Amino acid sequence: MVNLSELGEFGLIKRFSQQFLEDLPGDYTGIGDDCAVIPLNDKEVWLVTTDMLIEDSHFIKNKISAFDLGKKSLMVNLSDIAAMGGTPASAFLSIGIPAGSEIEWIDNFFKGIKSVCSEYGVFLMGGDTTRSPERVVINFVVLGRGIASEVKRRSAAIPGDIICVNDFTGDSGGGLQVLLNDLPEDNDSKYLVKRHNCPRANVKEGKWLSGWEDVHAMIDVSDGIESDIRRIMESSGVGAEINLDRVPVSEELERTAEKYKWNAREISVSGGEDYCLMFTVSEENADKLYLNYEKEFKRPLYKIGKITDSEHDLKFLLDGKVAEPTKHGFDHFR
Amino acid sequence: MVNLSELGEFGLIKRFSQQFLEDLPGDYTGIGDDCAVIPLNDKEVWLVTTDMLIEDSHFIKNKISAFDLGKKSLMVNLSDIAAMGGTPASAFLSIGIPAGSEIEWIDNFFKGIKSVCSEYGVFLMGGDTTRSPERVVINFVVLGRGIASEVKRRSAAIPGDIICVNDFTGDSGGGLQVLLNDLPEDNDSKYLVKRHNCPRANVKEGKWLSGWEDVHAMIDVSDGIESDIRRIMESSGVGAEINLDRVPVSEELERTAEKYKWNAREISVSGGEDYCLMFTVSEENADKLYLNYEKEFKRPLYKIGKITDSEHDLKFLLDGKVAEPTKHGFDHFR
Repeated sequence: MVNLSELGEFGLIKRFSQQFLEDLPGDYTGIGDDCAVIPLNDKEVWLVTTDMLIEDSHFIKNKISAFDLGKKSLMVNLSDIAAMGGTPASAFLSIGIPAGSEIEWIDNFFKGIKSVCSEYGVFLMGGDTTRSPERVVINFVVLGRGIASEVKRRSAAIPGDIICVNDFTGDSGGGLQVLLNDLPEDNDSKYLVKRHNCPRANVKEGKWLSGWEDVHAMIDVSDGIESDIRRIMESSGVGAEINLDRVPVSEELERTAEKYKWNAREISVSGGEDYCLMFTVSEENADKLYLNYEKEFKRPLYKIGKITDSEHDLKFLLDGKVAEPTKHGFDHFR
Repeated sequence: MVNLSELGEFGLIKRFSQQFLEDLPGDYTGIGDDCAVIPLNDKEVWLVTTDMLIEDSHFIKNKISAFDLGKKSLMVNLSDIAAMGGTPASAFLSIGIPAGSEIEWIDNFFKGIKSVCSEYGVFLMGGDTTRSPERVVINFVVLGRGIASEVKRRSAAIPGDIICVNDFTGDSGGGLQVLLNDLPEDNDSKYLVKRHNCPRANVKEGKWLSGWEDVHAMIDVSDGIESDIRRIMESSGVGAEINLDRVPVSEELERTAEKYKWNAREISVSGGEDYCLMFTVSEENADKLYLNYEKEFKRPLYKIGKITDSEHDLKFLLDGKVAEPTKHGFDHFR
């Protein structure tokens, strides 16, 4: 009998999703992108996303404060809305809590949520609170609004497009290593842990990018560049080349990797939980986009590769030569 | 230090909900009803509801088939949409699954979901699949549409209103006892288990009732008549009298209760998970409503009590006299 470990998360989603996609009206987007898309009126759509976090699988209670956990669990959903160019509006929280949990922990968890709601103008409008036998379970659903003609999907990449990210990658993966191995605290390790525990959702950036017709496919980097570019490749029926030496790595990660003999490059492409945006843009207008983005946000974009026409084919290049593939971004069931 | 058991589920919700309710625009309904209400256009609103089910807290894997569990976990959310008079439209499923789970179980779980989607015209549009260290965790979110002027809220009960339910209550609570005590299978026990494992959502009935101006407050009976009438009382600032001898009990539950020395009356008011509708209706038009309902659905409505003006005061009557209160409907954290 096949079990889930053999099939993996993506295998499972493929297995069941087809039967639910076939009935869907043409102007709806169902399973398979950062958000589902539901028509709202002539111009606008609803974007809906959801994420489940289970203690000991997605977080360890003594490695993140209740306040930061509240923030992060909402933020990762806002990031999915950002990845399609939308504006988050309402949030719904289901939480399973063991009976003996301290109220102080719960209060701080909700304070974290409230701070994100205030910062992003999101309303927590409902949910479900229930008892969990042992572990904390958190599920957020976020509804956002988007302009129908501007929503960016994973399926829109075109061969020749430049692949960009809008932030360093790998910091969060490095921070996770610091936490899991109880590494000593210094400025660098503190920075990496903060990047892991306190990600921010690129809502303004996503909305701004979605206004550009030349921006084609977009996704937020949740499982690492390697896993997430594969999602764009699969949805768009294209291939990709990633220039490993162009993937932006922070000095803090470089120094920490050197200290502990990590491979910073590997962490930067497969660490996951970066929650920056990765998108593809037509080559002819890419430079114009970079300049304008930098003017708007006072931060650069990083050009890390190119979309190719060789379907399913992901190449990593180092100094212009094909490099051995790094290990895969993690798959939740393996 | 206070912990969650002392506070209870309702205490917890009260504790955190105020800070999220205060910013909400006036035409939104947030935490505190079966669904949140979000304006959609001049006439319509979105209704949003969510429910989390955790293995060993809400279901026991060897007491319900994967198919029935898939059905039930979606159905209980449709029931919340029904309770406000809406029509369910889209569903989002987050599921946490232990790595060693059998694919056959998962396939049957999704078949159950698909059968409900087909029956009720609902689209499963997205979600999250993830690994759970040990227990299956299921979270559904359902979006539905409603007519703004017809949405029924818990807060609309008026002293003098008649309290009605549209089905037997207690069958599900009886079925749970059969399962937990491994009672022998006969026609009655099979019926009760089926009522526990395979509830149906009263979507057509809820929609029909919401078209009546004389129907004031409505709720679906998820925690038992006693707990759920208290929710209406609290939201509406009213009291209630429940005539215990009018609460409709099935013959199957009567016979099984007699056989095992259960108190059928207690189970019928506090068993929970009935998922029938309970609503209040103005006395002058109640009879007209009964007649029309019976004509439409070939089933009766049951008049079980009356809304009073003595706030917070719930009385149970038996043969016209005040009866001792039965034990409370269960509270998830106690």
